[in-house]
Amino acid sequence: MAITEVPTHLRAAVDAAKKKVADLHAELPRWELVVWTAGNVSERVRDTQGAADGTDDLLVIKPSGVSYDDITPDAMVVCDLQGNLVEGDRSPSSDTAAHAYVYANMPEVGGVVHTHSTYATAWAARGEEIPCVLTMMADEFGGPVPVGPFAIIGDDSIGRGIVETLSGSRSPAVLMRNHGPFTIGGDAKAAVKAAVLCEEVARAVHVARQLGDPLPIAQEHVDALYARYQNVYGQR
Amino acid sequence: MAITEVPTHLRAAVDAAKKKVADLHAELPRWELVVWTAGNVSERVRDTQGAADGTDDLLVIKPSGVSYDDITPDAMVVCDLQGNLVEGDRSPSSDTAAHAYVYANMPEVGGVVHTHSTYATAWAARGEEIPCVLTMMADEFGGPVPVGPFAIIGDDSIGRGIVETLSGSRSPAVLMRNHGPFTIGGDAKAAVKAAVLCEEVARAVHVARQLGDPLPIAQEHVDALYARYQNVYGQR
Amino acid sequence: MAITEVPTHLRAAVDAAKKKVADLHAELPRWELVVWTAGNVSERVRDTQGAADGTDDLLVIKPSGVSYDDITPDAMVVCDLQGNLVEGDRSPSSDTAAHAYVYANMPEVGGVVHTHSTYATAWAARGEEIPCVLTMMADEFGGPVPVGPFAIIGDDSIGRGIVETLSGSRSPAVLMRNHGPFTIGGDAKAAVKAAVLCEEVARAVHVARQLGDPLPIAQEHVDALYARYQNVYGQR
Amino acid sequence: MAITEVPTHLRAAVDAAKKKVADLHAELPRWELVVWTAGNVSERVRDTQGAADGTDDLLVIKPSGVSYDDITPDAMVVCDLQGNLVEGDRSPSSDTAAHAYVYANMPEVGGVVHTHSTYATAWAARGEEIPCVLTMMADEFGGPVPVGPFAIIGDDSIGRGIVETLSGSRSPAVLMRNHGPFTIGGDAKAAVKAAVLCEEVARAVHVARQLGDPLPIAQEHVDALYARYQNVYGQR
Repeated sequence: MAITEVPTHLRAAVDAAKKKVADLHAELPRWELVVWTAGNVSERVRDTQGAADGTDDLLVIKPSGVSYDDITPDAMVVCDLQGNLVEGDRSPSSDTAAHAYVYANMPEVGGVVHTHSTYATAWAARGEEIPCVLTMMADEFGGPVPVGPFAIIGDDSIGRGIVETLSGSRSPAVLMRNHGPFTIGGDAKAAVKAAVLCEEVARAVHVARQLGDPLPIAQEHVDALYARYQNVYGQR
Repeated sequence: MAITEVPTHLRAAVDAAKKKVADLHAELPRWELVVWTAGNVSERVRDTQGAADGTDDLLVIKPSGVSYDDITPDAMVVCDLQGNLVEGDRSPSSDTAAHAYVYANMPEVGGVVHTHSTYATAWAARGEEIPCVLTMMADEFGGPVPVGPFAIIGDDSIGRGIVETLSGSRSPAVLMRNHGPFTIGGDAKAAVKAAVLCEEVARAVHVARQLGDPLPIAQEHVDALYARYQNVYGQR
Repeated sequence: MAITEVPTHLRAAVDAAKKKVADLHAELPRWELVVWTAGNVSERVRDTQGAADGTDDLLVIKPSGVSYDDITPDAMVVCDLQGNLVEGDRSPSSDTAAHAYVYANMPEVGGVVHTHSTYATAWAARGEEIPCVLTMMADEFGGPVPVGPFAIIGDDSIGRGIVETLSGSRSPAVLMRNHGPFTIGGDAKAAVKAAVLCEEVARAVHVARQLGDPLPIAQEHVDALYARYQNVYGQR
Repeated sequence: MAITEVPTHLRAAVDAAKKKVADLHAELPRWELVVWTAGNVSERVRDTQGAADGTDDLLVIKPSGVSYDDITPDAMVVCDLQGNLVEGDRSPSSDTAAHAYVYANMPEVGGVVHTHSTYATAWAARGEEIPCVLTMMADEFGGPVPVGPFAIIGDDSIGRGIVETLSGSRSPAVLMRNHGPFTIGGDAKAAVKAAVLCEEVARAVHVARQLGDPLPIAQEHVDALYARYQNVYGQR
């Protein structure tokens, strides 16, 4: 049965997500990941009273083609996990189907971000994964940043490409071929962080490669760094 | 007959265009498309009571050599489509003749932008078109960004080069050889958007090319992406 | 004997250092040396009433994983020179052990900075020192910027790598392999300055090398520039 | 006879120059030409009652090693054309001798700027002039941007290198080998403009050269562009 409005028991959670998603959009121009109206952040709102498989969950996302100057909580739109508009005055981002597909197929994911950040997009244009030659890459990505398939907008092929590439991968980022990065996280903030770090490692490894070959990091060190960062870093 | 002042029936439209053009100039330094006083944005003011071929239309543009800090609606100048000053205290931009030629010869164009943005200018210095290897390029440009001829300022050769290159092209941007990009649009905002995206794709494809060959996008996919973006993206 | 709280006679000095260290963190994003929560600045607080070898000194540093928007003097944490928390509500930066090791083993050092700045990190990824081909490098670094060993977080191997590389070197900066730069100084501000200049010379020499070989500077000129800069530059 | 204080008849002109020079320093970080305290702007104050050869003129410049946050008109210092301090609480910039030498030997110069801007410095590190392959280069520089000799700070060798390179050249910019650009102009603002454009053309031509050879511009076109820009551009 289609969801036609935000259920009362999710009202507070949806409003909180609108605020959070609107605020997090400011991080994309701040870290120079987007130009003009490109890029989008979404967050899942879990319906704990809904179906056990999460199919009643909602997502909050930016409307299509809206300036970063005009992003407010009220401007955000709400969709179901088929990408249909549930609440909002404007059309959802044209990438909504991809976000929705990820939420519908990766229950642990709570946030998705898409940008066309320059260096990550350049690796994507060559269809080349970013090798793991920096300790900060081992920390956050646990290995290379993988490349996803070429997929055209308009059906669920982008969403499928993301899910197939990231399922079972340590990396929260995928470089969709000829397109750009999508990142995932436990919530929208974690996905934004992955987008910021994805561009930073794409740039630093690109620059390193311009004048020679970066030195590899032994797999055991990659594993140790990843394990520590996931379990110890930050505030507990 | 020369236009010597803004006709009364165009006063409100001219004033609105001055405000809009002044505001849009702020986008050029914001997206790092210009340094110092370089670059300019113009918009056509259509005289629907004038000649059917649009020869009575006016254009609003930035004065020559003025700092981006000093751009206000009142500082903007008004010219006819031969590039003659109709209203304003200062000399019009030295690129006015090129803008005017475009409006006079491409009736569908409502906005023109010129910058020396770094990466687009670098492609122009080599006289090399930007290949269409990114989905965002297919969306906005519908193919490669073409190169226009070398043309020297002082007669209508720049304007002719723009018109000859862009007539019949999907691309709203042309890289004038050894010079820099000019972009067009249905209004000034659309031309500014094209200038922002032109630099972004010039940079991303440059970066991709530094470490190898970007993968091509099949023509049928370029066509599909372009068709969708022109018809579906954004708010209707 | 473990230090369990800030001694009364160091209270004013610790509070002053918290203010200074908090303010100096703003320089890292300002000069684009860090993204997200990466990077950290610390300063030593000397206990002139403590042991003559400085083992009773304290250090002030940023907490782990905290946004640059949330850095205030009160948020800073205090540790002893074994890296144990002495004062503060949050976990210290995960790089604290490296900072503490430097203070414990280099008594002249009063400030330490760590970043993942892009170009310095790229040289570190290749394990390649930055050659001294700019007069500003001779001024500040007195020669090449050296590379330190690969070292994994979790024991004192990063600290040891920094100390072994910088002891007896003119350079206040070391590029830790596959990781990024650490810089030292007489106080935190001097270490921040070294971090800013390290990235600038890493970038300028990288750019120079992209199109050919930079010209060497004769050793006698490097020596003369370094001597003058260390003794004459700035306000006395 | 040494000048020991600002003559009464130059007080107003010196104060106006302090204000102007302080304000213009803000353009250096704005256009990303400097990091930390590097870079300096000066302006000549002509003593029309003094010696006909200009030897009684003064110059206003930034003090040495001062943060861009602390630059105010009152912080500026005044020197004579031998580089001796005439007025001010702080040591003048360590580049003052070079500025003073230029004013003493090029009477038409009213402003001098020095930066370590990244791309211009990279060309300087290779000792390679920037070829004139952009119309904006022809406009402002009238040909290539030339390279000056290697010169060490501490005597007048930097000043001599600037004067010998720029005397009789159209270019207001010289790339001092292994060091960075110096620019001159009729006043300090014109020299700042030349510094901004020098970095922009250094960057754009660098980027162009990374993927091939820029197309040359015929000498007759360079000459025509230069003549027009010097005589027609801007407000009269």
